[in-house]
Amino acid sequence: MNDTTLKSIAKSLVPENYLALANDARLERDKEIKLLLEQRKLPTYGWSDTMIEYFVRELALLDSNNFPSRCGVGEREGRVICDLVRRRHYNFSHGIGRSGNLTDAQPKAVGSTIMANLTNCLVRDWIRSAGIPTCARATVIPVATGMAMMLVLRTVHAKRPAASYVLWSRVDQQSCFKSILAAGLTPIIIDCIAHQEDVPGVAIKPFATDLPAFVSKIEELGADRICCIVSTTSCFAPRSSDDVIELSKLCQRYDIPHLVNNAYGLQSTYFSHQLAQGARVGRIDAFVQSTDKNLLVPVGGAIVAGFRPDTVEAVAKLYPGRASGSQSLDVLMTLLSLGRRGYEKLMTERKEAHAMLLEGMVKLAEAHGERILPCRNPISIAMSLASFEATAGRLEMIGSMLQKRGVSGCRVVSTADSKTIDGNTFLRWGSHSSRCSVPYLTASASLGMEPQDVTNFLSKLDGVLRKYRTKDKGDGS
Amino acid sequence: MNDTTLKSIAKSLVPENYLALANDARLERDKEIKLLLEQRKLPTYGWSDTMIEYFVRELALLDSNNFPSRCGVGEREGRVICDLVRRRHYNFSHGIGRSGNLTDAQPKAVGSTIMANLTNCLVRDWIRSAGIPTCARATVIPVATGMAMMLVLRTVHAKRPAASYVLWSRVDQQSCFKSILAAGLTPIIIDCIAHQEDVPGVAIKPFATDLPAFVSKIEELGADRICCIVSTTSCFAPRSSDDVIELSKLCQRYDIPHLVNNAYGLQSTYFSHQLAQGARVGRIDAFVQSTDKNLLVPVGGAIVAGFRPDTVEAVAKLYPGRASGSQSLDVLMTLLSLGRRGYEKLMTERKEAHAMLLEGMVKLAEAHGERILPCRNPISIAMSLASFEATAGRLEMIGSMLQKRGVSGCRVVSTADSKTIDGNTFLRWGSHSSRCSVPYLTASASLGMEPQDVTNFLSKLDGVLRKYRTKDKGDGS
Amino acid sequence: MNDTTLKSIAKSLVPENYLALANDARLERDKEIKLLLEQRKLPTYGWSDTMIEYFVRELALLDSNNFPSRCGVGEREGRVICDLVRRRHYNFSHGIGRSGNLTDAQPKAVGSTIMANLTNCLVRDWIRSAGIPTCARATVIPVATGMAMMLVLRTVHAKRPAASYVLWSRVDQQSCFKSILAAGLTPIIIDCIAHQEDVPGVAIKPFATDLPAFVSKIEELGADRICCIVSTTSCFAPRSSDDVIELSKLCQRYDIPHLVNNAYGLQSTYFSHQLAQGARVGRIDAFVQSTDKNLLVPVGGAIVAGFRPDTVEAVAKLYPGRASGSQSLDVLMTLLSLGRRGYEKLMTERKEAHAMLLEGMVKLAEAHGERILPCRNPISIAMSLASFEATAGRLEMIGSMLQKRGVSGCRVVSTADSKTIDGNTFLRWGSHSSRCSVPYLTASASLGMEPQDVTNFLSKLDGVLRKYRTKDKGDGS
Amino acid sequence: MNDTTLKSIAKSLVPENYLALANDARLERDKEIKLLLEQRKLPTYGWSDTMIEYFVRELALLDSNNFPSRCGVGEREGRVICDLVRRRHYNFSHGIGRSGNLTDAQPKAVGSTIMANLTNCLVRDWIRSAGIPTCARATVIPVATGMAMMLVLRTVHAKRPAASYVLWSRVDQQSCFKSILAAGLTPIIIDCIAHQEDVPGVAIKPFATDLPAFVSKIEELGADRICCIVSTTSCFAPRSSDDVIELSKLCQRYDIPHLVNNAYGLQSTYFSHQLAQGARVGRIDAFVQSTDKNLLVPVGGAIVAGFRPDTVEAVAKLYPGRASGSQSLDVLMTLLSLGRRGYEKLMTERKEAHAMLLEGMVKLAEAHGERILPCRNPISIAMSLASFEATAGRLEMIGSMLQKRGVSGCRVVSTADSKTIDGNTFLRWGSHSSRCSVPYLTASASLGMEPQDVTNFLSKLDGVLRKYRTKDKGDGS
Repeated sequence: MNDTTLKSIAKSLVPENYLALANDARLERDKEIKLLLEQRKLPTYGWSDTMIEYFVRELALLDSNNFPSRCGVGEREGRVICDLVRRRHYNFSHGIGRSGNLTDAQPKAVGSTIMANLTNCLVRDWIRSAGIPTCARATVIPVATGMAMMLVLRTVHAKRPAASYVLWSRVDQQSCFKSILAAGLTPIIIDCIAHQEDVPGVAIKPFATDLPAFVSKIEELGADRICCIVSTTSCFAPRSSDDVIELSKLCQRYDIPHLVNNAYGLQSTYFSHQLAQGARVGRIDAFVQSTDKNLLVPVGGAIVAGFRPDTVEAVAKLYPGRASGSQSLDVLMTLLSLGRRGYEKLMTERKEAHAMLLEGMVKLAEAHGERILPCRNPISIAMSLASFEATAGRLEMIGSMLQKRGVSGCRVVSTADSKTIDGNTFLRWGSHSSRCSVPYLTASASLGMEPQDVTNFLSKLDGVLRKYRTKDKGDGS
Repeated sequence: MNDTTLKSIAKSLVPENYLALANDARLERDKEIKLLLEQRKLPTYGWSDTMIEYFVRELALLDSNNFPSRCGVGEREGRVICDLVRRRHYNFSHGIGRSGNLTDAQPKAVGSTIMANLTNCLVRDWIRSAGIPTCARATVIPVATGMAMMLVLRTVHAKRPAASYVLWSRVDQQSCFKSILAAGLTPIIIDCIAHQEDVPGVAIKPFATDLPAFVSKIEELGADRICCIVSTTSCFAPRSSDDVIELSKLCQRYDIPHLVNNAYGLQSTYFSHQLAQGARVGRIDAFVQSTDKNLLVPVGGAIVAGFRPDTVEAVAKLYPGRASGSQSLDVLMTLLSLGRRGYEKLMTERKEAHAMLLEGMVKLAEAHGERILPCRNPISIAMSLASFEATAGRLEMIGSMLQKRGVSGCRVVSTADSKTIDGNTFLRWGSHSSRCSVPYLTASASLGMEPQDVTNFLSKLDGVLRKYRTKDKGDGS
Repeated sequence: MNDTTLKSIAKSLVPENYLALANDARLERDKEIKLLLEQRKLPTYGWSDTMIEYFVRELALLDSNNFPSRCGVGEREGRVICDLVRRRHYNFSHGIGRSGNLTDAQPKAVGSTIMANLTNCLVRDWIRSAGIPTCARATVIPVATGMAMMLVLRTVHAKRPAASYVLWSRVDQQSCFKSILAAGLTPIIIDCIAHQEDVPGVAIKPFATDLPAFVSKIEELGADRICCIVSTTSCFAPRSSDDVIELSKLCQRYDIPHLVNNAYGLQSTYFSHQLAQGARVGRIDAFVQSTDKNLLVPVGGAIVAGFRPDTVEAVAKLYPGRASGSQSLDVLMTLLSLGRRGYEKLMTERKEAHAMLLEGMVKLAEAHGERILPCRNPISIAMSLASFEATAGRLEMIGSMLQKRGVSGCRVVSTADSKTIDGNTFLRWGSHSSRCSVPYLTASASLGMEPQDVTNFLSKLDGVLRKYRTKDKGDGS
Repeated sequence: MNDTTLKSIAKSLVPENYLALANDARLERDKEIKLLLEQRKLPTYGWSDTMIEYFVRELALLDSNNFPSRCGVGEREGRVICDLVRRRHYNFSHGIGRSGNLTDAQPKAVGSTIMANLTNCLVRDWIRSAGIPTCARATVIPVATGMAMMLVLRTVHAKRPAASYVLWSRVDQQSCFKSILAAGLTPIIIDCIAHQEDVPGVAIKPFATDLPAFVSKIEELGADRICCIVSTTSCFAPRSSDDVIELSKLCQRYDIPHLVNNAYGLQSTYFSHQLAQGARVGRIDAFVQSTDKNLLVPVGGAIVAGFRPDTVEAVAKLYPGRASGSQSLDVLMTLLSLGRRGYEKLMTERKEAHAMLLEGMVKLAEAHGERILPCRNPISIAMSLASFEATAGRLEMIGSMLQKRGVSGCRVVSTADSKTIDGNTFLRWGSHSSRCSVPYLTASASLGMEPQDVTNFLSKLDGVLRKYRTKDKGDGS
């Protein structure tokens, strides 16, 4: 209701002085919204659900499908026939972007346009505050990380049509590798450095990246024929983050684009620091992360961000046609709900959960005659299962025993597995390196984990390991 | 968002000319709301769900429990701890009324106050348009019809403390009778006139009221000792409506208050006409109806209305303390959703369903050697079951067979039943008259009934009656 | 989906072993519901919103208005025409109770019946755990406290029709007093004991009740002519709780029914203890409390509870007709959401908030040359304003200054006010006693108050008091 | 609640015989769900919202993020931090697909898996019933049409890596053209046939496709170097559908893949027939359509369908990583809500709206000295504006005047415009052909259009054209 409407409320309905107090509160609320629209920065404190819905609904009412008298003769008028669907999208229907550009304004959908653009502004502000202050542009892309990587690869390739090789530091997760194939490019797999075992006097290599191998491949193929280098930060232990800083320097030196797969990396300031530093001393064209893992929204969105606007904008321009606004809406509501303080709290709690998980797993490893595999990974932890493999040899049983006890996300990797994707064979799949030699299980402390989850997991893991040993054959019941 | 907020939307978020068009639509919407608040009349056409929710939410934001910065040190601050509960009440929490009066404004709850008062205005407008143009005041009371009757009885008694008798034209439905007992008053039951059977040459008496019996009771007890007369319009066949007009004249003549139990009577212009006429030529202090049956909302509310403001206001003033606003909200949303046209459509469809049902039951009665019991009842129809009783004598089986086939609301009344409530015995309970002599079943065409319901019912009834006859003992399977 | 449905999920839709794990989780969930239905006790830990909605929706599906094929020919078929209304009531529509009894089962509404009865069971369990272990029966009545008191009064009077006096220990809140008038009974006001000022050597009287005055009134009127005694626990300071224990003894001695207005008393174990003890050593027929204040739901419901089933059941039987199920639903969802632990936490936090508020107000009083008025009240605190009245004489200004700063619920009571309700005059209205002589303001620490509310209030109060003094005339800006 | 739970409902909560009836209804509901899961076909009649939500929520409860006791130590556990976001996704969070394949089952998300796979089955059934009975496979892809085309192009190219040309029958809508560029392929634009003007004795060519030009291009480039041919069915008038049947024959003859951009073509049986015939007599590898335009859901999804499973499956396999399940959910809810009959009704109404719109525009054209441009287009209609261009020359004013009056979707195309996309120049952009010579406006009768929309539009268009003429310079106010 605008100011005129409010004034029309008859005294017969409510006394004027009561109304005046209520109007003060109304103005206070609108002031906060005004501030958001003007500054386009994360609010310090999270908004209440009521406030978020108020704002989001007001935006949706600016879209033509919600106009009281409308007369649509186009081929797409934002009509939604199922009421349940209409409701769950808060009356948004037109999606975002236009044929020409994912970030273009839609004349028919002013509210959706504001919603999407504001979300991108808030996302940038959030990335900056998460440890990457030099982030220049960020865009929510309504596809998950793999597809977003593919789009960025295509964008980069469009500028270097003759360069079809992608140098990729191996990480044993299909999605990123497949994005290279889906983009029609040729992956060159650079195997990870296997971590040095606890040889006395030999320091643990903190990074996974085989830099010399990268250099020799570049020299071999020629920089001009390399579309880009793809590095990875967040990943399963025992793989560590790639040495983003050194790779960035390399890319700058050879003038090769550099994409960073930062899938769930915004959860840790350690990764953010790598990115900020890499961009300062070298070249990073874009870094890509998922919305679900970093912002705890349903799967389906990714954020493409960069230190200069160009690559991010080029991705938006490459995007053919309109797109779902659903992911932007999820991100917007979540960011408003958390506020800066809310996100900081999540980050702190995650860090504490990681410390707690690490401590517990160290103890457990000791008790079972195993060890934590050496690596620098602020999220994922790997514990060896060497003695268990020796005993029974059916390690996958441990995984399914855990699953039956409600544990999800715990990966058991035996040394025997290998995998072929589209003609590319990965020895010791799951270990990120063909030189790895020990079976292990991993557990992660990711955003939203609670202390109780850690305690439960440790106790269940202990129980399962004991049972497995006792039964010898581990029938898993 | 107020006008200033909208202007603060940066051009970087959306182009100005696009925003201007969206703002036009926004102003159009607010204009409609302004009109409602100024005129306080039913809109001609129903509003969309989006529009209704927009309006209701804006109202709720005027309540102090939704103020962004609030500091509550009272004993009741409208806090709602369960989010699901908060949501389903659209953030309304303070209820309506104050200790002093059900219709008083609450300083803490401006939105709830407007909501409740506006609803009462719309309800009055709706009653006027439903055939009672002289209705002067109407109030939604958040209790069902029985309790509402009890409140009105207590209000009337408060003004006539020495008069403790209530003359009540018998209707075999417990709730109204119990409201007299609950009010602490003494009911005097005036048995209904049993309808003349089809004696050739004898006209059917259109009304149920035994007027001479009323007169003689008044003379016997003395008008001063009679708290009021309670008559009933809508009821189950074979009872007809009371002769509201003649009773009104009687009440005027003897200066006795007159309450009409119009439970689901607003569905039929026939009843409305009785009320309007009764008030014109005689005395009606208040008429009471349910919100659920006349407006298709969940059970829980009633409307007390009158032709002068005094009794309705006195009821509101008698009400001790605050009350639920939930029923007013249901009524408000429903009236806005229907609009004048929507309600008219429902009325027309109901009338058509009744005609269809009557026609079908006449045919069915004929086919089974029964007849439709004579009465003037625009909603409920009674069909005799004389030959069925003769056959097997277990008529209740017919009811349960229908129920098993998904038929609800069909009442089978055998002549044998009688019932005692708090010391008062009702011979042939269910027949509204101790002189009734035929078993029957009833079916109603009430608001919201669809043609398909009629067809289904007729076919199922036919099937059950056939089966009952065939099996002779009717085992109901 | 029942077990057969689940088995029908084709392998082409999802692999069997995946489905098996999901089914385990499903069984776990259903087990918890089974436990609730069997034990009918508060769960120890609160349920998630998802779980609550799952349960509530399943119940609603048992009501006939939600049957896939239904054929309704009654006068009330639970049809809901406005979709928004339907949704907000979770598809419940039939209300609770039947003509005969508020707690009777409805054949058409099995889900509503279970919902209402289960809620009553959980409420009893909650009251027991809140410090009244001997509570025998409790019923949610879908009217607020005042109306509920009125119903109980009418119920008691129905058994003692010749007894029309209600002995009432004065408490200056209109609703309870009006309920006596609305019930058609005659209130006898027993003025409260004014608290002894800090006369050295004189102990503060912990209770408000003028027991000797009660005794003399009983003797004067005769116990047979007294319908009941109404006492009050929770109330605004400087009134303390009535001496429920001694009044209970009195009632037992004279065989007079005893009703306790425990409006928001379940928040404090102090009041609960009074009630439990009173029933042990004397007579308490029923105690009445609001759902909104004790359970943080929207205004509209009350709980009538007793130490023997009879009075509570009699109230349910007196209730004429059906009633709203909305309040029971709010209570059910809230109790499931909190669980036993959740409510305990709320109680603890309230107690802490009270201690914090008291400490702060003591300091503030000292700083402004005032004092906390002596009384035993675990919720409300009163601070004198004697020197402020002396200065400017417009104490109400303090109230409106606080209101403008967002403070609600702080009552400023000047000694000058008096009030007449229906012919009964209350000297020094607001002070609960005609012998009170000091102006004051009150603040309460009620359920749901947060530490931040206390801090905010204290700081705002300090500011307002300073400003008022400075400006002398306190223009309130 | 499963069967055991139901049995645990104590008699003290509800009588057994009442419960039995409710259970019958419950079984009836579950039977319908069982049928859906077993047959995986569109229900004949649409389901109620209550039923749809019941089903969808039951599915979501099978996902691990909703398990009562869960212990997640993975990097993605489906946690959703913002309650509003959780609610609007009905507790679905894991998305669909796995790294390996968009249609793979997720062990952690059984409900999401069933939901997505079932949706695909229903979509296929719906396409079959919409006039393409030979459709073998269909998959909802959670990207809009443009991106879906790009994915299909990349999939086709992956099998023909040496073939980089895409022969594309020009249609002046950016999104499809951009999808070729985004896929990294080289578009060969085949200009459309301009329709013969009303030369007496010359029949109007029903199709837009310049078949001889296609043949000569194939001969020129060589079939092996052509990745595929892209044809279009639904488009803006005055362009007609491509001659899908002849192009299919051509593709078969030359062994070239054939993709059909059927963006909003499922609305018209005319297009469906083309596709079915094309596949019967020639080659169609896949046809792509939007979910928003054909099913009236929010923008964001597309359906890739084919007459053999292979291409559709290959697209799903190419998709790198997981994806949003939001679009599948929208489609599922909408299809269940409509049922077969509901969709048929929408189709019929659209056809009627088109006839009505055409008739009205023919009259309008006549009145203003213009004509309807000849073409075979069952959705979009183009009316010449030759005389208007002659008068004032600022045709875009007509568009903005319409917009100000609430008309959206009406495109005004002047002959002067031309556009360059990524180096490709389109003469007379908007006319689909460089040989077109007349300015015009278009209006469409698309799904969901109501008769009132047509009437409103015609009246507004008439008004605007008159005003434009009068003012001569048409200042648009």
